Amino acid sequence: MLKINKKYDLSPAQLIVSFYIIAVIVSTCLLSLPITTQPGVQWSFVDVLFTAVSAVSVTGLTVVSTADTFSTPGTFILLFILQFGGIGIMTLGTFFWLIIGKKIGLRERRLIRTDQNQSNLSGLVSLMKQILVIILLIELVGTIILGTYFYYLDYFPTWQESYLQGLFASVSATTNAGFDITGSSLIPFAKDYFVQIINIILLTLGAIGFPVLIELKDFIKNKRSYGTQFTLYTKLTTITFFSLMVFGTLVILLFEANHFFEGKSWHESFFYAFFQSATTRNGGLATMDVSLFSTSTLLALCFLMFIGASPSSVGGGIRTTTLAVILLLVFSFAKGQKSIKVFKREIHEEDIRKSVVVSFLAVMICFIALVILNYVENFSLMEIMFEVSSAFGTTGLSMGITPELSTVGKLVIISLMFIGRIGILSFIFVFHQEKQELNYHYPKERLIVG
Amino acid sequence: MLKINKKYDLSPAQLIVSFYIIAVIVSTCLLSLPITTQPGVQWSFVDVLFTAVSAVSVTGLTVVSTADTFSTPGTFILLFILQFGGIGIMTLGTFFWLIIGKKIGLRERRLIRTDQNQSNLSGLVSLMKQILVIILLIELVGTIILGTYFYYLDYFPTWQESYLQGLFASVSATTNAGFDITGSSLIPFAKDYFVQIINIILLTLGAIGFPVLIELKDFIKNKRSYGTQFTLYTKLTTITFFSLMVFGTLVILLFEANHFFEGKSWHESFFYAFFQSATTRNGGLATMDVSLFSTSTLLALCFLMFIGASPSSVGGGIRTTTLAVILLLVFSFAKGQKSIKVFKREIHEEDIRKSVVVSFLAVMICFIALVILNYVENFSLMEIMFEVSSAFGTTGLSMGITPELSTVGKLVIISLMFIGRIGILSFIFVFHQEKQELNYHYPKERLIVG
Ligand SMILES: [K+]
Ligand SMILES: [K+]
Repeated sequence: MLKINKKYDLSPAQLIVSFYIIAVIVSTCLLSLPITTQPGVQWSFVDVLFTAVSAVSVTGLTVVSTADTFSTPGTFILLFILQFGGIGIMTLGTFFWLIIGKKIGLRERRLIRTDQNQSNLSGLVSLMKQILVIILLIELVGTIILGTYFYYLDYFPTWQESYLQGLFASVSATTNAGFDITGSSLIPFAKDYFVQIINIILLTLGAIGFPVLIELKDFIKNKRSYGTQFTLYTKLTTITFFSLMVFGTLVILLFEANHFFEGKSWHESFFYAFFQSATTRNGGLATMDVSLFSTSTLLALCFLMFIGASPSSVGGGIRTTTLAVILLLVFSFAKGQKSIKVFKREIHEEDIRKSVVVSFLAVMICFIALVILNYVENFSLMEIMFEVSSAFGTTGLSMGITPELSTVGKLVIISLMFIGRIGILSFIFVFHQEKQELNYHYPKERLIVG
Repeated sequence: MLKINKKYDLSPAQLIVSFYIIAVIVSTCLLSLPITTQPGVQWSFVDVLFTAVSAVSVTGLTVVSTADTFSTPGTFILLFILQFGGIGIMTLGTFFWLIIGKKIGLRERRLIRTDQNQSNLSGLVSLMKQILVIILLIELVGTIILGTYFYYLDYFPTWQESYLQGLFASVSATTNAGFDITGSSLIPFAKDYFVQIINIILLTLGAIGFPVLIELKDFIKNKRSYGTQFTLYTKLTTITFFSLMVFGTLVILLFEANHFFEGKSWHESFFYAFFQSATTRNGGLATMDVSLFSTSTLLALCFLMFIGASPSSVGGGIRTTTLAVILLLVFSFAKGQKSIKVFKREIHEEDIRKSVVVSFLAVMICFIALVILNYVENFSLMEIMFEVSSAFGTTGLSMGITPELSTVGKLVIISLMFIGRIGILSFIFVFHQEKQELNYHYPKERLIVG
């Protein structure tokens, strides 16, 4: 790895993208193995590729039914790919370096940094170790709770199947992969609020961002005290994350009150709305067929999927901090302030520029994908818009059109999932490296805008 | 005016908005007069209000057929409102001050400046005089050409009707109002390329921005030489304006080649595409029923309408310079430059911030309108999205749903036309004035974005 690195002098962003491409190729090969599928199942190359990208990017959009296609060994291979994609190739890479006892140099640290978008280089190696421990611990606890619950409530006949389902559900939820081996997502659990709450907790722990988890762990261990030690990032992303979750729940309740929720009890309506709001952050699991929602609700869900999860998490989209920075920019502009002040801190100019560039390019990319898909497919605008938002946000919800997409359509969705996962910034820096500006200036001239 | 001004100390933005509100009220009263409508025509208050806002904002969306509703005096009243709206209340206001011989003070100049978004205060009074002269001159030439042409080609039986139609067409095109008294826009002229070219020229002169016209006039008079004297604004807006026009033409030709243009000659296809691209900038006239286009084309038209015309023109939308600044920001970011360099000038930080805020709020406002309209109306997502873009861009094209909107739907579209016309910046500064920042700073802290 180092040799290739030195020889061709790839930038961190180029290396990250290369690794993701390699992960997709390896996953495609693994999924093509005869033991992966059930006897008699034949699937096309583009479907295998689609499933590989969907799994590596932990999106969860599926062109084939996981329950009907995968054998038991295939299910474990899929689990492995989800785990690999969810925790991030770089985390595993770090772990690998640690295992073989190699001290990690600056170049490898920078590599990891671009993947998890961390600004601070120090402590990254220790961070990566903590990520692995925390995620595996969360998944283990999730597996035990869900498996035991499934067995004692007779959801599945044997304890083996209960714990296998529990393991798959726990990994799929924690990595926000959204794959299911029930064949119908969490719809069988539409009235089991306990399973839903456990899933929401697991989804949230995966999507809220690793740095938040680490800071929370340190806080619980009394290493930090609130207000003085939580970083600006943690405060902003957590507030945005939960605000969006509450906003989503309220909007769904409002728009569906006289529609899907008509005649349903308050707790049934609330749990449908709450679970759906939580799962659009990035999870992609569903307790209902989303195409039953009204257009207004679907548009709101598109917005939530487009925003996506927190940075440095398993999720995609433009990320919560990007939205927060843009919103703060608008407010500070309206108040006539030249800098963004929040929590007694100022946001760096560079981060504002990044947020703007990311948002603008995201809108452009999704809009172009929307236009192309409308040209090549025969589905309604709403179905296509939902699919595009879901792929870019690596959410994995669908109104049901995924298996019927044409090959061009599948390739467009594959590209969106890929870009959504590696993030737009990495995508830019593949072509142009971050570099120092040449020290020259022209006179400034005012413009008329807006 | 001055007294009210001093007494209540309204900001320029607040005054502009107040004046537009007064213009809407006066127009609503004028349109409610019995002489305005043909005998026997009854229309509801919300329809009169809708028509008034549509005319003052020179949008051209209509809930009633202008040809079937308006009497001949009513047609002249409508023309007067279009003229008033198109040239801008402030231009007429300046003219009024000039006529009564009052020297214009700084406060009035600032007032005008906000309306036309001019950064440079000096020479504004002279600019306003020039605007009026130029626009009236363009309209006069347009009337003579179109009226004479209509008469000699027997489009209309008498010379009176020919010149009335010529006058209405010329004013409607130059102010980009998009109203028509033919009852079917320019569809009767779908194969008359001469009328279309004259209309495209008039539309463009109205939508390209007054400062560009002034600089062009000075250039023709040899007062300026190219490159050294054209302002950055003129270069940027002109390039963006015509690039979008070419882009629109190509996109329509591409998407409709196997659809609407199938079996049509190359010149027919070209003129349909070219006219439609030009008219989405802001004109709102149509040589065909736009609902015949495919979804991909309609989405592209939505994008063009959302961008709209140049600032300081008769048009709406986020404006061409806003798009240009955002695009330049993305390119300079990708190249690793901290400032935006273009034409050997740097773009001011403040203008970048304005562009970002305008774009973001515009997307938000249109998205919220889209969600509300989908909730209250029963039309397809595409029809509603088209209507929203058209209203915000004050373009006035429609897939035909305008007359059938509910009262709530009409009020949403009225709000969009109003905001589209006064511009988002004025709208912000109504609530918060531009002010100097207090001179304190917090430590900067880095974030993880995108
Ligand atoms: K997902
Ligand atoms: K118009």
